[in-house]
Amino acid sequence: MSHDPLATPCQASTLDTSVSPTGSLELLSQAEVERLRGIARGALYELFRRCALAVLNCDDTSDSAEEVYKRYPDFEIEIVQRTRGIKLQLRNAPACAFVDGAIISGIRDHLFAVLRDIVFVSSELYRPLEAVQGGDQDDATLHNFEAIRFDQSHTEGAEAIKSLVFHVLRNAGLLQPKVLPRLVVCWGGHAISREEYDYSKAVGYQLGLRGLDICTGCGPGAMKGPMKGATIGHAKQRIQGGRYIGISEPGIIAAESPNPIVNHLVVLPDIEKRLEAFARLGHGIIVFPGGVGTLEEILFLLGTLMDPANADVYVPVVFTEPAISRGYFSKVDAFLVSTLGERVRAYYQIVEDDPVQVARAMKSGVEKVARNRRRSRDAYYYNWLLNIPQGMKDPFEVTHASMSALKLTRDLPVEALAVNLRRAFSGIVAGNVKDKGVRLVRQFGPFELRGERAIMDAMDSLLRDFVADGRMKILREQYNPCYTVHPL
Amino acid sequence: MSHDPLATPCQASTLDTSVSPTGSLELLSQAEVERLRGIARGALYELFRRCALAVLNCDDTSDSAEEVYKRYPDFEIEIVQRTRGIKLQLRNAPACAFVDGAIISGIRDHLFAVLRDIVFVSSELYRPLEAVQGGDQDDATLHNFEAIRFDQSHTEGAEAIKSLVFHVLRNAGLLQPKVLPRLVVCWGGHAISREEYDYSKAVGYQLGLRGLDICTGCGPGAMKGPMKGATIGHAKQRIQGGRYIGISEPGIIAAESPNPIVNHLVVLPDIEKRLEAFARLGHGIIVFPGGVGTLEEILFLLGTLMDPANADVYVPVVFTEPAISRGYFSKVDAFLVSTLGERVRAYYQIVEDDPVQVARAMKSGVEKVARNRRRSRDAYYYNWLLNIPQGMKDPFEVTHASMSALKLTRDLPVEALAVNLRRAFSGIVAGNVKDKGVRLVRQFGPFELRGERAIMDAMDSLLRDFVADGRMKILREQYNPCYTVHPL
Amino acid sequence: MSHDPLATPCQASTLDTSVSPTGSLELLSQAEVERLRGIARGALYELFRRCALAVLNCDDTSDSAEEVYKRYPDFEIEIVQRTRGIKLQLRNAPACAFVDGAIISGIRDHLFAVLRDIVFVSSELYRPLEAVQGGDQDDATLHNFEAIRFDQSHTEGAEAIKSLVFHVLRNAGLLQPKVLPRLVVCWGGHAISREEYDYSKAVGYQLGLRGLDICTGCGPGAMKGPMKGATIGHAKQRIQGGRYIGISEPGIIAAESPNPIVNHLVVLPDIEKRLEAFARLGHGIIVFPGGVGTLEEILFLLGTLMDPANADVYVPVVFTEPAISRGYFSKVDAFLVSTLGERVRAYYQIVEDDPVQVARAMKSGVEKVARNRRRSRDAYYYNWLLNIPQGMKDPFEVTHASMSALKLTRDLPVEALAVNLRRAFSGIVAGNVKDKGVRLVRQFGPFELRGERAIMDAMDSLLRDFVADGRMKILREQYNPCYTVHPL
Amino acid sequence: MSHDPLATPCQASTLDTSVSPTGSLELLSQAEVERLRGIARGALYELFRRCALAVLNCDDTSDSAEEVYKRYPDFEIEIVQRTRGIKLQLRNAPACAFVDGAIISGIRDHLFAVLRDIVFVSSELYRPLEAVQGGDQDDATLHNFEAIRFDQSHTEGAEAIKSLVFHVLRNAGLLQPKVLPRLVVCWGGHAISREEYDYSKAVGYQLGLRGLDICTGCGPGAMKGPMKGATIGHAKQRIQGGRYIGISEPGIIAAESPNPIVNHLVVLPDIEKRLEAFARLGHGIIVFPGGVGTLEEILFLLGTLMDPANADVYVPVVFTEPAISRGYFSKVDAFLVSTLGERVRAYYQIVEDDPVQVARAMKSGVEKVARNRRRSRDAYYYNWLLNIPQGMKDPFEVTHASMSALKLTRDLPVEALAVNLRRAFSGIVAGNVKDKGVRLVRQFGPFELRGERAIMDAMDSLLRDFVADGRMKILREQYNPCYTVHPL
Repeated sequence: MSHDPLATPCQASTLDTSVSPTGSLELLSQAEVERLRGIARGALYELFRRCALAVLNCDDTSDSAEEVYKRYPDFEIEIVQRTRGIKLQLRNAPACAFVDGAIISGIRDHLFAVLRDIVFVSSELYRPLEAVQGGDQDDATLHNFEAIRFDQSHTEGAEAIKSLVFHVLRNAGLLQPKVLPRLVVCWGGHAISREEYDYSKAVGYQLGLRGLDICTGCGPGAMKGPMKGATIGHAKQRIQGGRYIGISEPGIIAAESPNPIVNHLVVLPDIEKRLEAFARLGHGIIVFPGGVGTLEEILFLLGTLMDPANADVYVPVVFTEPAISRGYFSKVDAFLVSTLGERVRAYYQIVEDDPVQVARAMKSGVEKVARNRRRSRDAYYYNWLLNIPQGMKDPFEVTHASMSALKLTRDLPVEALAVNLRRAFSGIVAGNVKDKGVRLVRQFGPFELRGERAIMDAMDSLLRDFVADGRMKILREQYNPCYTVHPL
Repeated sequence: MSHDPLATPCQASTLDTSVSPTGSLELLSQAEVERLRGIARGALYELFRRCALAVLNCDDTSDSAEEVYKRYPDFEIEIVQRTRGIKLQLRNAPACAFVDGAIISGIRDHLFAVLRDIVFVSSELYRPLEAVQGGDQDDATLHNFEAIRFDQSHTEGAEAIKSLVFHVLRNAGLLQPKVLPRLVVCWGGHAISREEYDYSKAVGYQLGLRGLDICTGCGPGAMKGPMKGATIGHAKQRIQGGRYIGISEPGIIAAESPNPIVNHLVVLPDIEKRLEAFARLGHGIIVFPGGVGTLEEILFLLGTLMDPANADVYVPVVFTEPAISRGYFSKVDAFLVSTLGERVRAYYQIVEDDPVQVARAMKSGVEKVARNRRRSRDAYYYNWLLNIPQGMKDPFEVTHASMSALKLTRDLPVEALAVNLRRAFSGIVAGNVKDKGVRLVRQFGPFELRGERAIMDAMDSLLRDFVADGRMKILREQYNPCYTVHPL
Repeated sequence: MSHDPLATPCQASTLDTSVSPTGSLELLSQAEVERLRGIARGALYELFRRCALAVLNCDDTSDSAEEVYKRYPDFEIEIVQRTRGIKLQLRNAPACAFVDGAIISGIRDHLFAVLRDIVFVSSELYRPLEAVQGGDQDDATLHNFEAIRFDQSHTEGAEAIKSLVFHVLRNAGLLQPKVLPRLVVCWGGHAISREEYDYSKAVGYQLGLRGLDICTGCGPGAMKGPMKGATIGHAKQRIQGGRYIGISEPGIIAAESPNPIVNHLVVLPDIEKRLEAFARLGHGIIVFPGGVGTLEEILFLLGTLMDPANADVYVPVVFTEPAISRGYFSKVDAFLVSTLGERVRAYYQIVEDDPVQVARAMKSGVEKVARNRRRSRDAYYYNWLLNIPQGMKDPFEVTHASMSALKLTRDLPVEALAVNLRRAFSGIVAGNVKDKGVRLVRQFGPFELRGERAIMDAMDSLLRDFVADGRMKILREQYNPCYTVHPL
Repeated sequence: MSHDPLATPCQASTLDTSVSPTGSLELLSQAEVERLRGIARGALYELFRRCALAVLNCDDTSDSAEEVYKRYPDFEIEIVQRTRGIKLQLRNAPACAFVDGAIISGIRDHLFAVLRDIVFVSSELYRPLEAVQGGDQDDATLHNFEAIRFDQSHTEGAEAIKSLVFHVLRNAGLLQPKVLPRLVVCWGGHAISREEYDYSKAVGYQLGLRGLDICTGCGPGAMKGPMKGATIGHAKQRIQGGRYIGISEPGIIAAESPNPIVNHLVVLPDIEKRLEAFARLGHGIIVFPGGVGTLEEILFLLGTLMDPANADVYVPVVFTEPAISRGYFSKVDAFLVSTLGERVRAYYQIVEDDPVQVARAMKSGVEKVARNRRRSRDAYYYNWLLNIPQGMKDPFEVTHASMSALKLTRDLPVEALAVNLRRAFSGIVAGNVKDKGVRLVRQFGPFELRGERAIMDAMDSLLRDFVADGRMKILREQYNPCYTVHPL
């Protein structure tokens, strides 16, 4: 769904061209170029190709990765060696990324961000796993792509992952010393109503008027609205150099193609590291209404903040919605209280239909963050002291077995329950929109979730509300839930 | 009519505060401050107060000057002297210009642009005329304001006005040496449909993607859409320092309050000098559908370009509209041909519903302008060599007498007929929206226009179409034409 | 005398070329160009020609204006009109101002600063006076030049001059709002020993290391050393945008050609306004050893600071010299105490041979100036509140009559005595180096000074010391004093 | 020897303080900090301490490393961990690096450049070798330091070294894409006469006037003069951002402490990689008179350029000297022709006493380099295509055995002879100024060189001239040659 009169479908018109690098890939040694070409021709090729395609297709309004891939089956991308560095050779590239034959600068930046983060940075982080057995022949390439996963072996332990995320963000130029906290993370649905989109834009506008920058998952909907609003707010305040940071990951970039306002794009290896990047880079977090993906993010955040190790860490969190959203966040609040207990309410505030109030809360919140960081001698640019529970950091491999094995009972410590709830929602997101999850459900039927009745009821009630409100109908005409709930 | 979810009416909430200057008014000698204060307390006070109010009220969606004035009857503005310069003391100012008590930077810039151009620069250009006789007592202040007009005596002759406009633009920092032509003037209605607004935005977006800057009359509608679109285009192309220039004049600034994207505002003394500023500053001109004001601009432009003295001057002109505008420009084209002759078509092209094509025409057009200026050794930043006929430069005092005295026959030279046609439309604009014109019509009935039947028919037909298309129904529930047409 | 291995005499090699403007003269209206050309062809031509020649001859080591003029008798400069502005046509210009045929950028800046300040700004400030009668025919041009003087009539009163100096400095881009005080004025001789030059450089180096900027009379010697030193200090501290301001006046610019480090040159109309510019622009003042010109500056400064009207104004003043200067400042100190009284010592400190101490005193001094300005609500960029006695502001026309009429007795108020002492030294400077003064002395013999014996003795003793120390031997092999002292 | 009135010996006054990082070390992960601290506490500590001391002692005029070390025996430097990164804790640091207690910014940059290049970058490049056997106990630390050498094992082959040098330069921020060639390398003696120093400054001035940047070995003498001159040239041309690049190596940085004008300092692992950095980074090379070190550089350069593999590579080379140098370069020329043959003259030109001519040759030279690089599609910022013979790249371990084993006969290919001649001079440099070489000669007597009589005679004649001209008397009162020559 698009709300932007400027967005025009590419209509499958394509062109061939070559593009010179910007940023850190402008200066490569010949050894680096050779290594890069080897990697990009190998197992990572399909991943790189798909992410590049998503970036080039940014004006499109579809959010089905499969549809995009099918529309440009012949798209190819190749790294070409020149004495003085590289260029990218594109064939059958979506024409909408170009103006009179020249690539749009922002899209070029995104393209080389993908190359940097997927191929260059990640060249030591990814490795081909064994191909998934079975499946029809046509899916071979796709399977190969699925089989490539971040190799966790050399990032065991929380410290290693914290450093890895730091390195990826630093390499992307996102860490700025000596700048006061002002980066607000905005989460929420990518497929929301016009009114909710306009509300997220109004919030971004008020944030921008107050000199705050925006960081989102860089797709459409609540990922785009705050950035557009902040752009206008910054312009009215004559603020140059406002930052609109998009944090993505390979599995989701095609489904949530970075919107053109993003002027800093970074691709983390997987969803867990993406969430860690949000938590360590942002100085405050706003959540707009969304679907299960948003719930997953809320659970990650609150489970982390409630960890006793974070008693001295302060992060302002605001849940907000327009009047039209009909009490979305009272339902979420009820769910959170019934699962994680009354104490959870200390970690967020809910603001109903009041962009100015949201922005003021964030403004005073990031000022408190600045004092908190100075007192704890932590950096402004990276929240080193935040402890993210190991369960939040471990990637969750979504399968029918892993989903049904999740323990969802209130006798667990609250952080542990939050971890499992997040995984449950993560699995539902995968079953809804991620290639592999969708195929698993198509093949073996819905995932089964098991747990204490009160929790199961709360989950089921919340998910029914989501369906009723259209928050889970994602690109599919007739929605079949990808899960069933089984109270113990 | 507003299309912007960010625009919220100020709801008459007000505050008192003081504001420090920016730009050229930061450094004033004490003699200058004294002179400034004297002027601003005197006859110019009401004019300055109204323009300041219009600028502060920029988020408002009304375009009735009178309504705005009524909503803030107690608004006051005073220049306060400090050893090191001035500040502006505001009382009962519209709260929407402020964020948490601090004025929005862009609005501060606009406020001091008004002070600079109305009080400081124009202190030698304006003088109080004798008060209009009659009228009820309550209108005294207003009459006083009306009575202040630009004193033409020391700018007699085309050369003097050309220099005056140059000085005002230079003083506003708008002239940039050594920058290649890239400024596109966009004209069109300020009260247009959502679809036409979106179209103007799409055109601006395509212009921005091609590195072109935008100059408009700085109000809403077709004055705002191209700037918003260009902002996104510039952002996608990572162009810093895009220019969004608003050229206004005192009589119109309140009705067309500068939109917040304008990052260079200049206020010319009157409508004729404003048109001259457009013509000398811009490198190409796009016209979107509008009402009689737009027609007036078209006649000014074509009458000028057709002047034999401009045989060697090149200015690209494009008329463009979305599909939904139902042939607006074929009607305009028919009117122009039937009044100014077939030859007029050499001076513009019409592009139907194709933003990319418009932008490409402008891109190649300004490149041709660059070559033309180099060949004629004219400046890029000011079109010195353009000859504007004297009749286009003389202010037209709209009265029942002056309107009925206009000669509208094809035996006139084409430039002379264009001058008179422009005056006729100018009178109709005044009768529709300008304070004085509206009062004249309210008091004495519609203006009478006289001329050759073919011209009268063409005018009447065009104006009927405008009414039928809702292009002349401006903020009034029941529209009564402010003119009658009388063929000779 | 040159201490610079880079300085190479031009050796009278010349070239013809044209130069395009920079800065504020890039954008001129055609009316302005026409006016400018008229002025520059007229009475001001010779003045403009000479100042331009001085600027172009900047690498030369001579400080005799007459010698420079004789070396380039055919040098011509003309303002040429182009549609888009002006250019300067040079004929027989000193080749040392050019590199491979292109003018050195800094010299171009200086050239247009001269045009701006002498012809453009001053076009309303200068007027031709009646030609001096008598004199041989060959001196006609020179007489004409001498006859042009600043017209005082429209700057009567201290306020008017204060505003005039402000306007000239603002027009030159020298006034910067919102910048903390850091501009140190350095005075001292232009013909000093290698050791004194190196000392002034060491002081400038220590100033630069502490982030202070330099303002001088922009010639050689103590006007150049501090700038060179500060350049190195700024470079070591990685300070970009250090300011090296040269303040000159037409009568002295040829004798003290601006050194190449000056990156802001301004030419005030006469010596009194130049002194006023130093006093209002600078935040602290350092005086190095010099000749009678330096004494004149000291008397201007102390006479001003001692004025009761300046009781609340703070200006840090340091007199400093290297060990080799053999107590120069104890002699000056003795002279000041014996003429202006013990109280004068409250207004300066003397630092012997210690650059670090000088710089520390200035650093803490300008910090105190910042507090002083904030308390009095005065601007950082211009000392509005300083009262300069009228006698210091009135130009002193040096003649045999005016010199012998000066009253030099201690029964005068101290400010009045300081005024007269300054005039006496001013006359001696004129008799030494200024064209007209030198000719007067050559024609009618030395000036006669009359006053109280104690003062006469103090003056004579000081001047004898200057002669003994070689501080008055300026370019002349055998020095004959241009004055005689006559106690009353 | 110092020619700078600003340079004042630190006089052993010291202070304790801590310094925060700039540049790339501002943003370190905690793992990196831990690794850095481990390395800096270990075997590399002494190397780091010495280089840091050299940088801090930059105003000093001595060029004896040993003297500097002895003057600050208690100097200590420690990397301190903070949550947000590191700081350096200094104890007993030379006071001359500080202004009123705060470190000079340029020296801070140099200090962190040393940390970056020695500890951070090189942490993977250096490893402790086994300690040299023998020697008295007090020299233990020194031996340990000597024993640390660049580990060549992972940079075998020319390609690997070319990449390594590229990585070090890129990491130091020295490679700038899209900038036209303008970097001139200046070589020559660090202990030269006042006249030669002034000449090198005059050359630098003329280079700066023509917009050329300077790269040297970053010590005093001919390494400093061109930078000082270029600084003035750039200032006169209003060129911001001129680059003064210093390329050093650990063994020489203390003896040739970087002068304060250097605004980009990089420390390569050893002398061979330093020479490679000069050759690949610079666009043209000027050689001033010097001692054997300069000869070594000349032989490296010409041996490389004469390699048949470089037939298509163009590098402009100028040898130049002032009149007072009494034909230094005719002697060098004679030596080169008698050893490498007449053909060698095609690779350089000699300019006598003419800075303007040198600068013009370089200006046209780098323009030809630009054309050459475009034609060969090589980068402007790094000379990828230059082939440096392996013998020039292999570090030459100076011992009595390796010196006497050098084959110096004309039956070798000219590149091979150049390699051996360069090694011979390299050994003589080591015997003169490098810690280890000096100790070897002190212990075992002069090195013995063997070769063809004509070559031996040419070498001996040249070296005698050097001694006669004082070019080998380096800080030592009585010079004993560290070599003997033995014709075969």
